[in-house]
Amino acid sequence: MSLAADIAASEPIGEWQQRHLLTLEELSREEIETVFRWTDRFRSLLATERSKLNWLGGRLVVNLFFEPSTRTRISFSLAARRLGADTVDFTVTGSSVAKGESFIDTAKNLEAMGVDVMVVRHSSAGAPQLLAQHLGCAIVNAGDGAHEHPTQGLLDLYTIRRIKGRIAGLTVALVGDILHSRVARSNIHALKKLGAHVIVCGPATLVPPQLRCLGVEISHNLDAILPRCDVVNLLRIQFERQRTGLFPSIHEYARLFGMDGSRLKRARPDVLILAPGPINRGVEITPEVADGPHSAILQQVTNGLAVRMAVLYLLCQGGKR
Amino acid sequence: MSLAADIAASEPIGEWQQRHLLTLEELSREEIETVFRWTDRFRSLLATERSKLNWLGGRLVVNLFFEPSTRTRISFSLAARRLGADTVDFTVTGSSVAKGESFIDTAKNLEAMGVDVMVVRHSSAGAPQLLAQHLGCAIVNAGDGAHEHPTQGLLDLYTIRRIKGRIAGLTVALVGDILHSRVARSNIHALKKLGAHVIVCGPATLVPPQLRCLGVEISHNLDAILPRCDVVNLLRIQFERQRTGLFPSIHEYARLFGMDGSRLKRARPDVLILAPGPINRGVEITPEVADGPHSAILQQVTNGLAVRMAVLYLLCQGGKR
Amino acid sequence: MSLAADIAASEPIGEWQQRHLLTLEELSREEIETVFRWTDRFRSLLATERSKLNWLGGRLVVNLFFEPSTRTRISFSLAARRLGADTVDFTVTGSSVAKGESFIDTAKNLEAMGVDVMVVRHSSAGAPQLLAQHLGCAIVNAGDGAHEHPTQGLLDLYTIRRIKGRIAGLTVALVGDILHSRVARSNIHALKKLGAHVIVCGPATLVPPQLRCLGVEISHNLDAILPRCDVVNLLRIQFERQRTGLFPSIHEYARLFGMDGSRLKRARPDVLILAPGPINRGVEITPEVADGPHSAILQQVTNGLAVRMAVLYLLCQGGKR
Repeated sequence: MSLAADIAASEPIGEWQQRHLLTLEELSREEIETVFRWTDRFRSLLATERSKLNWLGGRLVVNLFFEPSTRTRISFSLAARRLGADTVDFTVTGSSVAKGESFIDTAKNLEAMGVDVMVVRHSSAGAPQLLAQHLGCAIVNAGDGAHEHPTQGLLDLYTIRRIKGRIAGLTVALVGDILHSRVARSNIHALKKLGAHVIVCGPATLVPPQLRCLGVEISHNLDAILPRCDVVNLLRIQFERQRTGLFPSIHEYARLFGMDGSRLKRARPDVLILAPGPINRGVEITPEVADGPHSAILQQVTNGLAVRMAVLYLLCQGGKR
Repeated sequence: MSLAADIAASEPIGEWQQRHLLTLEELSREEIETVFRWTDRFRSLLATERSKLNWLGGRLVVNLFFEPSTRTRISFSLAARRLGADTVDFTVTGSSVAKGESFIDTAKNLEAMGVDVMVVRHSSAGAPQLLAQHLGCAIVNAGDGAHEHPTQGLLDLYTIRRIKGRIAGLTVALVGDILHSRVARSNIHALKKLGAHVIVCGPATLVPPQLRCLGVEISHNLDAILPRCDVVNLLRIQFERQRTGLFPSIHEYARLFGMDGSRLKRARPDVLILAPGPINRGVEITPEVADGPHSAILQQVTNGLAVRMAVLYLLCQGGKR
Repeated sequence: MSLAADIAASEPIGEWQQRHLLTLEELSREEIETVFRWTDRFRSLLATERSKLNWLGGRLVVNLFFEPSTRTRISFSLAARRLGADTVDFTVTGSSVAKGESFIDTAKNLEAMGVDVMVVRHSSAGAPQLLAQHLGCAIVNAGDGAHEHPTQGLLDLYTIRRIKGRIAGLTVALVGDILHSRVARSNIHALKKLGAHVIVCGPATLVPPQLRCLGVEISHNLDAILPRCDVVNLLRIQFERQRTGLFPSIHEYARLFGMDGSRLKRARPDVLILAPGPINRGVEITPEVADGPHSAILQQVTNGLAVRMAVLYLLCQGGKR
């Protein structure tokens, strides 16, 4: 821990102007690179130091989740605790929300107990932004409706950068239900800032044409674009969100946009396959591909922990705070 | 932390004879003042020391909750952890209770794992008392039926004392559903002991006349008593408990007993507005008042954390243990 | 803590060849005795050291529970935290499982966040074994279907050994629903290895005759065997699992196989009564016996914590890892 403490003392934070992490749209290229630099550091610290860091000792990180989640909530909790912070999980079940308290009152009451960072997931786009306007603590958007999921975007890009060595100049395809995907929006903003060529690909009903304004290429034919892709990010088909009628059938979707072994053969030999998970095996990805050498699905999870440590650390120590 | 440790070592506990905190009825005036003195200390320690205290290191505090709760459970957990104790939450969902185990067996089994303090919420009045008779660990009542909620009473009084400088001689109104309110009962006992004049005010169906035995004034007309009040504590209308027929309508209730901007003008210029929360905006209080300069609602939450630290500390270190 | 640290540094682990704890069937007699030796140590450390040990500092123990549980989950959490490890609870409710993710994917994703030990409860026999084949972390079976519940078996035997001074040569009866009981299976394997004579006793419908292959005696008449027993372990009647028709009625069961005061008089004067709990008072055991001098029910819970500390410690520090 003395080594870790030395690093913390001597390393400058780097470029970081944010009080909150609400979107990747508003992060600068330099700020994203600051996150990646700290992610690198935390990855090595996690690998070499068995005992916990205490850089955020005495801090309190609250997960305020209005939608069910496993990996994101646990990943934030562990990231906070690995840095020495205390954590509290607040989910809708068994809460004051059942008693009719307003969203902002719930958050303000938690804040009054001494919260430093509030990690918020909500089914409504803009909910974390609203809290940022009303509260004094730092807010991290852990997914708001179909808007953004910035830490997922950061961990996707970090994984690409780590494996490919760069992001600029790569061609990255986002495949699937772009319309409902906050992961897609966060990826698009960050990939464009860092100089990637982005293709969004899916059934016409699930790819909003106005995304062209963001400078992305639109495709409805995975096989046509696949040979050009350095990275393919296979979004989840969110059965629980899907209203009927947006695509003919699961089987049809899998046939046209699912990644299986034979389709993978038409891709570049060094193509990188990402999936934000939880994956539906046999729908957007077959087991053969998910568990194969091109897949970085579990590395994404491991990197996610370090990315979230970096974000929490920067919000507590860096920039405007 | 060395400063904090010094304070702990040198400060005498003060008057404290309790093994449990079951009611404010049975606490002496001196014991309430001991809680307030330690609350003062913990408030300053929380403000100045970022890192955790370790005064209850190795101790285990269990929240045993048979009713849903957010703020109370989290407040106790944080209070325990800020003192270095470990915490376990045990709520009815997903528990042995579904398998038919008795209330006392559940508690005894938890205790056998090495519990120091058990914080109990239950829909039946007397449940914490029952545990105190059967268990060896310290019991804190976190709300039992319509009986008492002593830490809420303590934090209400602490907030009054902090803002008004005293409690003796003040006129304090408790407004709303007195009949079902454990908060009202705890407030009445403690306010009387500390020398306040207490008025309970609400619809005739929700104010039991036998409260007069406790030395409180009874009113059914908020506008009539308001000019005399130094403090108004607006109890929650508990929709989820309310049997029909006890008051005409929510609208009618809000018109007669809700606090809004125009009613507030008829109060003293320095009137203090409390509400135990979670508040129903537009029912017992309007946003204008809840977020206005007279309201101490969020200070109550902040003070609650320090009050609970004081209670846990006194039960572990003080008096008869 | 320095004393504790000294013990850790100087004590050899003892015989321990396991990467996982999946069954007691596969544990050797010497390994069981290693667990008991470490349990003795942790019991004394818990009694004398108020502050936590830090032997597993920086380690992460995850409870992955697909069946509801109270005492087992909390016992493992506390055992891990008393050793300085961090813990995460993952239960089915509110999880990715609702989104259709596979069992193994859920576990692998958790593992990718840096898990050292995964404690697994599942309604299917063999689920922990399956995870042990696919994951790199240590797996502890916390109950799999009607197969095994090894830490419950270990704490039962440890309690017998502590009170009786030995296990070899004792006659131990397991009474009740043997057919559905993972506790019975774990007890049988370990008791036989350590040289006890085992009698399984229950209604014919609930005692599979093929158990004779394991070298146990079978009985359907508790009163007939009772005078020979040193220990009687009263298994839970699992109402929630019981399909109808396996025994005539609860009343009939209690009359034939329940332990009450008058039946207890026919037992040896030093008979030891165990029950894995949560107990159904009035069914397999009456309050008079459960709370009487022969019962070690609460000692089992206390010992369980120390047994689980021993298991977690051995898996993290010992043997093949």
